[in-house]
Amino acid sequence: MSWKLASRTEKMNPSVIREILKLTEKPGIISLAGGLPSPRTFPVDDFARACARVLQHDGAAALQYAASEGYGPLREAVAAQLPWDVDPAQVLITTGSQQGLDLVGKVLLDAGSRVLVETPTYLGALQAFAPMEPMVQSVPSDDEGVDIAALAASVGNGADQARFLYVLPNFQNPTGRTMSEARRAALVSKAAELGLPLLEDNPYGDLWFESPPPAPLTARNPAGCIYLGSFSKVLAPGLRLGYLVAPPEVFPKLLQAKQAADLHTPGFNQRMVFEVMQGGFLDRHVPTIRTLYRQQRDAMLGALERAMGGLGVQWNRPAGGMFLWLRLPEGMSAVDLLPLAVERGVAFVPGAAFYAGDADPRTLRLSFVTASSAQIDTAIGSLADAVRALRMRPTL
Amino acid sequence: MSWKLASRTEKMNPSVIREILKLTEKPGIISLAGGLPSPRTFPVDDFARACARVLQHDGAAALQYAASEGYGPLREAVAAQLPWDVDPAQVLITTGSQQGLDLVGKVLLDAGSRVLVETPTYLGALQAFAPMEPMVQSVPSDDEGVDIAALAASVGNGADQARFLYVLPNFQNPTGRTMSEARRAALVSKAAELGLPLLEDNPYGDLWFESPPPAPLTARNPAGCIYLGSFSKVLAPGLRLGYLVAPPEVFPKLLQAKQAADLHTPGFNQRMVFEVMQGGFLDRHVPTIRTLYRQQRDAMLGALERAMGGLGVQWNRPAGGMFLWLRLPEGMSAVDLLPLAVERGVAFVPGAAFYAGDADPRTLRLSFVTASSAQIDTAIGSLADAVRALRMRPTL
Repeated sequence: MSWKLASRTEKMNPSVIREILKLTEKPGIISLAGGLPSPRTFPVDDFARACARVLQHDGAAALQYAASEGYGPLREAVAAQLPWDVDPAQVLITTGSQQGLDLVGKVLLDAGSRVLVETPTYLGALQAFAPMEPMVQSVPSDDEGVDIAALAASVGNGADQARFLYVLPNFQNPTGRTMSEARRAALVSKAAELGLPLLEDNPYGDLWFESPPPAPLTARNPAGCIYLGSFSKVLAPGLRLGYLVAPPEVFPKLLQAKQAADLHTPGFNQRMVFEVMQGGFLDRHVPTIRTLYRQQRDAMLGALERAMGGLGVQWNRPAGGMFLWLRLPEGMSAVDLLPLAVERGVAFVPGAAFYAGDADPRTLRLSFVTASSAQIDTAIGSLADAVRALRMRPTL
Repeated sequence: MSWKLASRTEKMNPSVIREILKLTEKPGIISLAGGLPSPRTFPVDDFARACARVLQHDGAAALQYAASEGYGPLREAVAAQLPWDVDPAQVLITTGSQQGLDLVGKVLLDAGSRVLVETPTYLGALQAFAPMEPMVQSVPSDDEGVDIAALAASVGNGADQARFLYVLPNFQNPTGRTMSEARRAALVSKAAELGLPLLEDNPYGDLWFESPPPAPLTARNPAGCIYLGSFSKVLAPGLRLGYLVAPPEVFPKLLQAKQAADLHTPGFNQRMVFEVMQGGFLDRHVPTIRTLYRQQRDAMLGALERAMGGLGVQWNRPAGGMFLWLRLPEGMSAVDLLPLAVERGVAFVPGAAFYAGDADPRTLRLSFVTASSAQIDTAIGSLADAVRALRMRPTL
């Protein structure tokens, strides 16, 4: 049989993270690799009550085909909780915010279109855009986000102008960094000046540790932004429930792409989440996640201080979210470190996985949310041992 | 802000069905338009028990991120219930079988690729393929399915060879027709001879009324087919749970496309359905759906016999599924009939919506599963009144 694959499949490659996660499924490995929320934060009993209520009071509708836009009351609840004036008609419920990336790619990217991303950026966004065969350009970025001068130089002209900049301002995956207020203001202003749409991804914004992050980019210029949100980090990822907010110029095409992709997001899941949210549940629940993750971040920072002394390793101090970014001493590679770390019972993701352009081989991503504080302490000790072992190894 | 849409969005148009469904949401309209399973068939109490068990015994895993392939036990259960030797490793769980169409389009279609479909065909497949910008070619078809001689003439040569034929052999949407055993054998043989992959969509196969349909095409040549299945019609569509079975040459790319599209289908929903299926549930439940839909088909056939006498209207007798196909007398158009029908309290979908090429304007699709037998009787009477009204109207 002559299966002829589409040329785009050459751009679709197995996820490095995926292959690494397989490695870390070996028993006895403490994984700081995956971005898995702590199951301790899943409100299992609340979901059980919500399921029972939905099936009892609204079972037939919850189990039937439904509108592609999403469940009306959930769209209204999403609009109401966002910190700018959002018309529920501009809210599209998606099967996780990953689907939002797929839909935006379909609607805004032609083969060869320029698309701008941060350096480094979320790997899943690169994978979602890949089937549309864009030319992905990595904009130089620092601890506060994308470099505004570099952005202007990267945006291109006329038909070659970038279709959008993809940006994750809060507790970014993979770096854990947060875009500062000044940088946000400058970015929105420069993007408007350039006519450059922004695709703002905000899965982690509610997981702040000391104080809330600055206002979203979209709140500053809703007409120029598509906003992606998610219930995966504040409730549970296994329901695959996210949303996007888009201006009227692009919403109808995103809706058509959604309908073609999976008709609609499961109505049962939408009602479950709407039901759980009643009575201010998230206002009580999310602070418990913040507290847990802050403790685990602090455990990781403390362990790094204790274990990495004198090794020349640098790391940041994320103000929220799930990830910490670490940089090895000059000449070391995180890809070389990984097998030594796995031998010692700890896994992480080499930073190279997250670069659309040239990678910094010294970087790596550590998750502080899946493992317990005690496991984090053990794992960071093992990671330091692996760094020492790599340092001792003769250069090949 | 300069939103520049991808050129593929020009091929993505609002669904006619979607717009019509809005029309039929007016109170008092009996809709024979939508393909909505009867909510009387939804096993609400079984789902409620399954939800409770899943959350009690496996809550953390059900609510966590999961493998893109799907929940292992469900993949095994799907493989075990299919009537040919299926390796669970070749089963991919999808967010409804609509997503299977999206993934196959991404992996097998380049812009301008030839793709073959039946005449008429499932509108959702055309919508799923549209973003990949294929050249869709409609293969002449009769009451038994695609015309084999016409298929050979349509397949193209070399680089222009069709990437696949999309076919829905059992109780097709929209026509309700079933591909005969002889036609299946001839099709699989001819497709193998031509090197033409088949995309077999089988959402309705279990809903037979008198006897099971002939074996699937894929069972006859698994290496040359991708098979799409669904739980939407045997359990409930609101969970958005389908699957595909694909040969090793294409499975890895479909899996990567799946991961990029929505990471994975909700693990909670997968476990719910697996749990409900335990103890031979479908063997007891599906016959009750068959009985109900057979009664409703018979109600529609009886009502048509009574109401349409002397009007020159023709219709078929579906052996299963959800739809009946009707043809108006020469010179009449189903699009012209629709507003007259809606005025009289009944809605349907004009057949023109389902043609990739030239449409037969006289055709229309009637669903016999959503409305009750009594409503069907009333609706068909109103439809006959509308036909009479259209016949009386002076030609413009």
